[in-house]
Amino acid sequence: MKAQATVSATVQIGDLERFSVSALTAVGVPESDALTTARALVTTDSWGIFTHGSKALPRTVRRVRAGGLRADAVPTVITDGPAWSVIDAGAAIGQVGSAFAMQRAIAKARVTGLAYVGVRNTAHFGAAGYWAAMAAEQGMIGVAMSNDHPSMTIPGAKGRVLGNNPLAFAIPSGRHPPVLLDMALSTVAGGKLWAAMKLGKTVPADWSVDSDGKPTTDPSALFAGGALTSMAGHKGYGLAVLVETLSAVLTGAAVTSQVLEWFVDRPDLPTKGGAAFIAIDVGAIMPMREFAARMEKLVDEIHAAPRSAGSERIYVPGEMEWERRAQAQTAGIALPEDVLDELRQLSRDLNVELPASIA
Amino acid sequence: MKAQATVSATVQIGDLERFSVSALTAVGVPESDALTTARALVTTDSWGIFTHGSKALPRTVRRVRAGGLRADAVPTVITDGPAWSVIDAGAAIGQVGSAFAMQRAIAKARVTGLAYVGVRNTAHFGAAGYWAAMAAEQGMIGVAMSNDHPSMTIPGAKGRVLGNNPLAFAIPSGRHPPVLLDMALSTVAGGKLWAAMKLGKTVPADWSVDSDGKPTTDPSALFAGGALTSMAGHKGYGLAVLVETLSAVLTGAAVTSQVLEWFVDRPDLPTKGGAAFIAIDVGAIMPMREFAARMEKLVDEIHAAPRSAGSERIYVPGEMEWERRAQAQTAGIALPEDVLDELRQLSRDLNVELPASIA
Repeated sequence: MKAQATVSATVQIGDLERFSVSALTAVGVPESDALTTARALVTTDSWGIFTHGSKALPRTVRRVRAGGLRADAVPTVITDGPAWSVIDAGAAIGQVGSAFAMQRAIAKARVTGLAYVGVRNTAHFGAAGYWAAMAAEQGMIGVAMSNDHPSMTIPGAKGRVLGNNPLAFAIPSGRHPPVLLDMALSTVAGGKLWAAMKLGKTVPADWSVDSDGKPTTDPSALFAGGALTSMAGHKGYGLAVLVETLSAVLTGAAVTSQVLEWFVDRPDLPTKGGAAFIAIDVGAIMPMREFAARMEKLVDEIHAAPRSAGSERIYVPGEMEWERRAQAQTAGIALPEDVLDELRQLSRDLNVELPASIA
Repeated sequence: MKAQATVSATVQIGDLERFSVSALTAVGVPESDALTTARALVTTDSWGIFTHGSKALPRTVRRVRAGGLRADAVPTVITDGPAWSVIDAGAAIGQVGSAFAMQRAIAKARVTGLAYVGVRNTAHFGAAGYWAAMAAEQGMIGVAMSNDHPSMTIPGAKGRVLGNNPLAFAIPSGRHPPVLLDMALSTVAGGKLWAAMKLGKTVPADWSVDSDGKPTTDPSALFAGGALTSMAGHKGYGLAVLVETLSAVLTGAAVTSQVLEWFVDRPDLPTKGGAAFIAIDVGAIMPMREFAARMEKLVDEIHAAPRSAGSERIYVPGEMEWERRAQAQTAGIALPEDVLDELRQLSRDLNVELPASIA
């Protein structure tokens, strides 16, 4: 696909966080929850993952205003054991429930070595990788996942059966930034088909099926009763069932089609989805210095692997994102036009001033 | 690919288990360890996964005789916490160390809700799904994985960088058999390329790369310095790093190329790989009756999904394998010719009598 001409403008991380906090507090979100949410969204932007960054701010604000997200929600522990909890997020902003849950998983893992915290009655939590990375910052292996309204078909079926349930993990890696993978369980994200459709392009036949369940190169078929395919066929399908189980079946959250659609369903109704967070306290299991040295060796070995023709460099998972973040911390984040449009509209709607560099 | 004419012979599960126990005890494996190993291998055969079933028996016997697998090994706990342990399997038969580890994970999860048990100095453990299913039989969600000698390349590289590390999970599913997925993290198993090469067929270009790291449709390139590709590109690559970490980095096992090759390396040397087992005690977190009803609803919903043209039935992960096992429990297992050849040769080598039906 040819690169499109895009207009971008650059904003400092702190400025974008402050704007995000102001926008959220303007609709009644408590300051600390606003900051939790802003940090998650802006960190994701700084990784260059703009689909899951501050672009979500207007939709979050809209749902808070309509009541589908509750600004005054306080996540509560429903059931609890030595190495696990189940939380009811109370229809809080997804980031608020997720921060509560992962922090609890980390605290419990400090005692028992590892912990699972499942969440019901939560909402879109942005990038799963942000929550996994939160554990890695504390010297733990973090895993984060959620279910979602169905968008994927499965082998033998037509139509949408399971969500393209995101799954992420992060591993502290010594002097290297954490190894970090954040993936959906569909072959590609729906956004790629949307973009191809807008450009009038075809797509590989294994990305999606039409309304009859037949593979198609026409990206518009996805939006006319079609469905995404699962990553690697039965493997992505199976992993999606695992994520559905840990996020929703085991937490009492809404399962599959019972989850409302974040993008299109009524903003006054909670989406009711589930999420799950796992933390493994590396330092409890192996001296952290030894683990770090072993991870460094693995990362160094991967970096040093012979390269294929045309390959300039081998990346470990997450490395590109951490490099983009490091650059953003000094040079700021170059937000693409679609994100700028959303933020400018939000600024007008709420009468909250944008940072000058992107106003 | 056209089905090949194959010769098979049918054996009862109990008869094949008894033969396997006799073969193992004939080379000095204690009766209980022999039974543990035999049950794992024969259950895998009964699922129809003949690549990981009793076909491995001759190689196991060969390594026990040569000393690379220790018949007298007793897995020992190296370090231990409330919800985790690290085990040194002492170069025991892979199934012996794995049974010890998963049983320990299950016992710990009964107390804390979930547990991780990592294993170093272990060996090929057969089908990862067998260990996951062991937890599901106890009402737990089970996860099992191991690292392996590199066979996969990764994006940007050429040559073999990571193992096609197996990863499996099983979920108790009420009146349905456990949802069960057992996958390698390569696009396909090397055995598929071997079979295509023997038949003089080409393979899809995304299955493997040649010695220059270029995609190839020639299956023989894999065996001339080529490598398997990772499932779904960066996703399978990332998951392989996670499995490597939990199985080997965190357990003190041999990592990547330090693991000897089960198939080709000297049989008198331990392969030194690692494995990891996780058990989540569903009944601690949610009343089992409620969880079972919720899983049944999910499975029923998947079964009832609209079918694509030509699709006669939608399977949940593992369903085909459990149906094959149910059939095998009455009708016996129809072993394919390659497995029969191996077992007949072993019977002659050890002077241990085969069950009459396959002799």
